Amino acid sequence: MTFAPGSVWLVGAGPGDPGLLTLHAARALAQADVVLHDALVSPEILALAPQAQLEAVGKRAGGDQVPQLRINERLIALARDHLRVVRLKGGDPLLFGRGGEEGLALAAASVPFRIIPGISAGIGGTAAAGIPVTHRDLAHSVAFVTGHDTSGGLPEIDWAALVRGADVLVLYMALRQMGPIAERLLAGGRDRTEPVAFISEATTPRQHVVVTTLADAAHVAGTIPKHLPTLIVIGPVVALQPLLAVCQPEGERHAA
Amino acid sequence: MTFAPGSVWLVGAGPGDPGLLTLHAARALAQADVVLHDALVSPEILALAPQAQLEAVGKRAGGDQVPQLRINERLIALARDHLRVVRLKGGDPLLFGRGGEEGLALAAASVPFRIIPGISAGIGGTAAAGIPVTHRDLAHSVAFVTGHDTSGGLPEIDWAALVRGADVLVLYMALRQMGPIAERLLAGGRDRTEPVAFISEATTPRQHVVVTTLADAAHVAGTIPKHLPTLIVIGPVVALQPLLAVCQPEGERHAA
Repeated sequence: MTFAPGSVWLVGAGPGDPGLLTLHAARALAQADVVLHDALVSPEILALAPQAQLEAVGKRAGGDQVPQLRINERLIALARDHLRVVRLKGGDPLLFGRGGEEGLALAAASVPFRIIPGISAGIGGTAAAGIPVTHRDLAHSVAFVTGHDTSGGLPEIDWAALVRGADVLVLYMALRQMGPIAERLLAGGRDRTEPVAFISEATTPRQHVVVTTLADAAHVAGTIPKHLPTLIVIGPVVALQPLLAVCQPEGERHAA
Repeated sequence: MTFAPGSVWLVGAGPGDPGLLTLHAARALAQADVVLHDALVSPEILALAPQAQLEAVGKRAGGDQVPQLRINERLIALARDHLRVVRLKGGDPLLFGRGGEEGLALAAASVPFRIIPGISAGIGGTAAAGIPVTHRDLAHSVAFVTGHDTSGGLPEIDWAALVRGADVLVLYMALRQMGPIAERLLAGGRDRTEPVAFISEATTPRQHVVVTTLADAAHVAGTIPKHLPTLIVIGPVVALQPLLAVCQPEGERHAA
């Protein structure tokens, strides 16, 4: 697999643990001339590109960030300088990663690009917490949902329909909107006792899991610092967490 | 990260391309004494464990497979023989991978285990086809759904609600059920012209993508050989496929 100068690779960095990078992602980092990375990508992962120039381009919950159009323009300019450009994004580039927008901008500028998928927090973070996103007889469907739209408000989603159709909900960036979301899920018919898990800084040594109920979810959300990347899982599979987390050796499972 | 004798790692092999294994997965394979693998895992990936004893345990669409309880028992027995056991599964172990069931069986037997997530076909296969599963203004939610339950029939899902709540549907193992599923989606209010993509053997050199409409999806499903692992994507994001697939260098993107 050749990383040609003048091209851009949109690369998923996974949920945090450097060991959850793909082989393609590690090879891309080792060959890159420049890496434009999200603020949440760890120093341990950036260390896989010691030869590359690093540029942080956002985005951390609630903080400053480089506007998407500026990122697109920067990717195009660097590629036209005949560099090997990696755009490194937490999780997966296309599951709430805005990689589609970057890909379209690159295509419109005739810049060759590749998309290297990554382990999304909704997959890798839930596994590290001991929560299967699907499970025989408990979950035939799982929905991945963003907790805010591009303006920061609650996205236009028919929540009542969603909770009747999907056995499990995995919410990204929804800490600030947990109150209104929980109201809509209860109004849609989900039970007040349904288990809810909050997974902060998933797959890192600082991973922290709190399990509560849908009735108490808004309160618990208020106790978690807003700057921590936190995934929220709602569904019967959360009840398996104490059983599946217990046998994974503590202190080892997050190491690279 | 130490792979201790007497433990089992449930490892995702990704969608097909060996370069989409995680670093953890590659290290697990390099250390394994024995690898119990799905039939769909490729020889190229199994070659990453040249020292290990290999055991195929199913499952290929429509073909024979080792019953899940037998697999669980075998994993426990091999761990009790003080071996390093990898259970290697296509895609991700927990997203329609039945890894939760294996984890519960290992926990009940007090066998230490870890779960190493993988790139699910719904993430990696869609990316390779040039389809973003979410996209600003087009998709705030995506549902991953299995097309059949454990008896092979249509799973108990409120399809009409699901299609009102989820912008994008990604269907696994749904080729045989495309007719009844399309009927339910149309009855639930989705448009006959909504684009649908069939992605067969995603991320391999044999990847094949067919784009059609919801009205024609059942007919197209009938033209695809049933033994091919095929992912089905339904939603407005499929319309971006011609734009996003065009700039990825053909013949290179699937190579390891």
